[in-house]
Amino acid sequence: MVGGGQLARMTHEAGIPLGIRFKLLSDTPQDSAAQVVGDVVIGDYRDLDTLRAFARGCDVITFDHEHVPTEHLWALEADGIPVRPGPDALVHAQDKGVMRAKLDAIGVPCPRHRIVSDPADVERFAAELGGGQAPDGFPVILKTVRGGYDGKGVWVVRSSKEAAEPFRAGVPVLAEEKVDFARELAANIVRSPHGQAVAYPVVESIQVDGVCDTVIAPAPDLDEELAGQAQQLALRIAQELGVVGHLAVELFETADGRILVNELAMRPHNSGHWTQDGAITSQFANHVRAVLDLPLGDPRPRAPWTVMANVLGGDYPDMYYAYLHCMARDPQLKIHMYGKDVKPGRKVGHVNTYGDDLADVRERAAHAAGYLRGTITE
Amino acid sequence: MVGGGQLARMTHEAGIPLGIRFKLLSDTPQDSAAQVVGDVVIGDYRDLDTLRAFARGCDVITFDHEHVPTEHLWALEADGIPVRPGPDALVHAQDKGVMRAKLDAIGVPCPRHRIVSDPADVERFAAELGGGQAPDGFPVILKTVRGGYDGKGVWVVRSSKEAAEPFRAGVPVLAEEKVDFARELAANIVRSPHGQAVAYPVVESIQVDGVCDTVIAPAPDLDEELAGQAQQLALRIAQELGVVGHLAVELFETADGRILVNELAMRPHNSGHWTQDGAITSQFANHVRAVLDLPLGDPRPRAPWTVMANVLGGDYPDMYYAYLHCMARDPQLKIHMYGKDVKPGRKVGHVNTYGDDLADVRERAAHAAGYLRGTITE
Repeated sequence: MVGGGQLARMTHEAGIPLGIRFKLLSDTPQDSAAQVVGDVVIGDYRDLDTLRAFARGCDVITFDHEHVPTEHLWALEADGIPVRPGPDALVHAQDKGVMRAKLDAIGVPCPRHRIVSDPADVERFAAELGGGQAPDGFPVILKTVRGGYDGKGVWVVRSSKEAAEPFRAGVPVLAEEKVDFARELAANIVRSPHGQAVAYPVVESIQVDGVCDTVIAPAPDLDEELAGQAQQLALRIAQELGVVGHLAVELFETADGRILVNELAMRPHNSGHWTQDGAITSQFANHVRAVLDLPLGDPRPRAPWTVMANVLGGDYPDMYYAYLHCMARDPQLKIHMYGKDVKPGRKVGHVNTYGDDLADVRERAAHAAGYLRGTITE
Repeated sequence: MVGGGQLARMTHEAGIPLGIRFKLLSDTPQDSAAQVVGDVVIGDYRDLDTLRAFARGCDVITFDHEHVPTEHLWALEADGIPVRPGPDALVHAQDKGVMRAKLDAIGVPCPRHRIVSDPADVERFAAELGGGQAPDGFPVILKTVRGGYDGKGVWVVRSSKEAAEPFRAGVPVLAEEKVDFARELAANIVRSPHGQAVAYPVVESIQVDGVCDTVIAPAPDLDEELAGQAQQLALRIAQELGVVGHLAVELFETADGRILVNELAMRPHNSGHWTQDGAITSQFANHVRAVLDLPLGDPRPRAPWTVMANVLGGDYPDMYYAYLHCMARDPQLKIHMYGKDVKPGRKVGHVNTYGDDLADVRERAAHAAGYLRGTITE
């Protein structure tokens, strides 16, 4: 696995029971996954020689993130190393421009969008939107087509004057309408090389300041037909794009009951962390199984409700005393910490809770996440 | 953790979500746990200097097995390193003579037993038994007081002539009556340094050729009062012996509805592997929590029935094709392999299944374990 973040850490955890030999390419020995994996190579995934040397002897390569240059992936494939997901699929998670063009081509509903060339072009795009937008079409979402995550590389601009910054990086900029959504959903599916696929229940994802805060599985009060449409959409995208492994499709649910695709991620995803304790087979276990072309595990939930809440860094670098309180308060609480240095606002872990009563399950998750961060003190 | 076997491997897996730094002392880099742990020291736990150097900088030491010499554990404690379970408790799992003497002293029911000095003494012990045994008191169980496991260091002898071998090792020999049991049970509990304890449901353990084959949780048709007695017994043993961490109490259930203590293990135990997929908190997670003096997790089951079946080595060193069949046949199957070289009869993994219908759950576990071993081929 290329990349030493928490997704690799939790994929390793899920791979241990399968008896597989898990090898990691990590930037530093302190990275989240590098702390817990036995076979670690320290090196820069942007360097092709490093990547090639790492890949030698691997049966298959997969990823913790989307940032490996697409041409490096082609080079690995040319070396005869299976890359899953392959570069032709992964490019859609790497480049939002390519992703939007492909989703348009296969008729998947997306927010209105186009590549823009400068602030004046943003103003023209805004004017074209009309409709539900303000008279001048603003606000508009601008995204660099590569390199963004967790709100980084994304701007909400209210005028062409505010639109200068996204163009400074010299990366193409995608403009999108700001969708007036009722809530955000995610459809998580896993697909294997021979085409078997499983769909997890569609979840609701609640963002705070552009970062995922809470995930509720399944999405409460979601129309059954719409849930089925969202799963079908994710399965179709995976098939059309040739995805292998876990695919997260982030969706907007509009007030008038439509779904639009916001983002794609081709790896285990924050919106699937609930599956570790809430599903028969976790997203990490199924990602490993897909990458190894093994039959996939049952994606069904084990409890009526599972809630995941992210733990962001707060003022306390030491979690031990917070554990004492949280574990004593809720003996069913599932804590998943990433071994990261605590910095304010940084995702350092998550908690999962499950049970029959959604209000109780949400309260327990929110309490634990808040207490671990330090924003709740009793 | 001292010892690189599968128990350390699965303890590491369970410790990853807590964000702890897990350090391993392993005999070789190929050992089951050494393959998957990041921070591994290769060395001999019987060498005090090695053990001391390993322990420096650890907050607490725990064990994959009982074989660390008791005097070494005292030395670590003298160095100021917390050892959990401590030597005064662990000696009861190391030395069957010490264990029987202590259980007698605190009034815990055991098979009749005494230390014997030679084959003639075995004959005298047999004659003393009388009662339910054959007229001459045989067969009798002989055990070396230290060093045995999985049927090793245990003999069933039918005459004093057969009783010579156990004395050859020069280790004291314990003689025990051969209990005419209806079945074997195990009571698993976890206790923390400040005295909190949790009890898992009492399970039935089915042995084949002296090796655990299947564990059913909870033990079917077990009298509720007897189950409560078994849990209480395990909790009392833990308290009286000062156990910290997981304690497995292997029990005989007699035809007349009594329970007798067979063996003790102070570490995660084969009879608790079902908890990985069948309980809210696994024995491994609770062992870690106890050793770190964190509040313990809920031990209750997540399904009406969970069955664990051990996978023994068979003729196929490569499990990939067996995985294809087993995973496709049962998408809910939980496979736990240990990364060990496959040798005939060696424990190389286990499977867990769970559900509402015990017959179905048993069939699925037995099929998968048999198929992985190669004794079932369809």
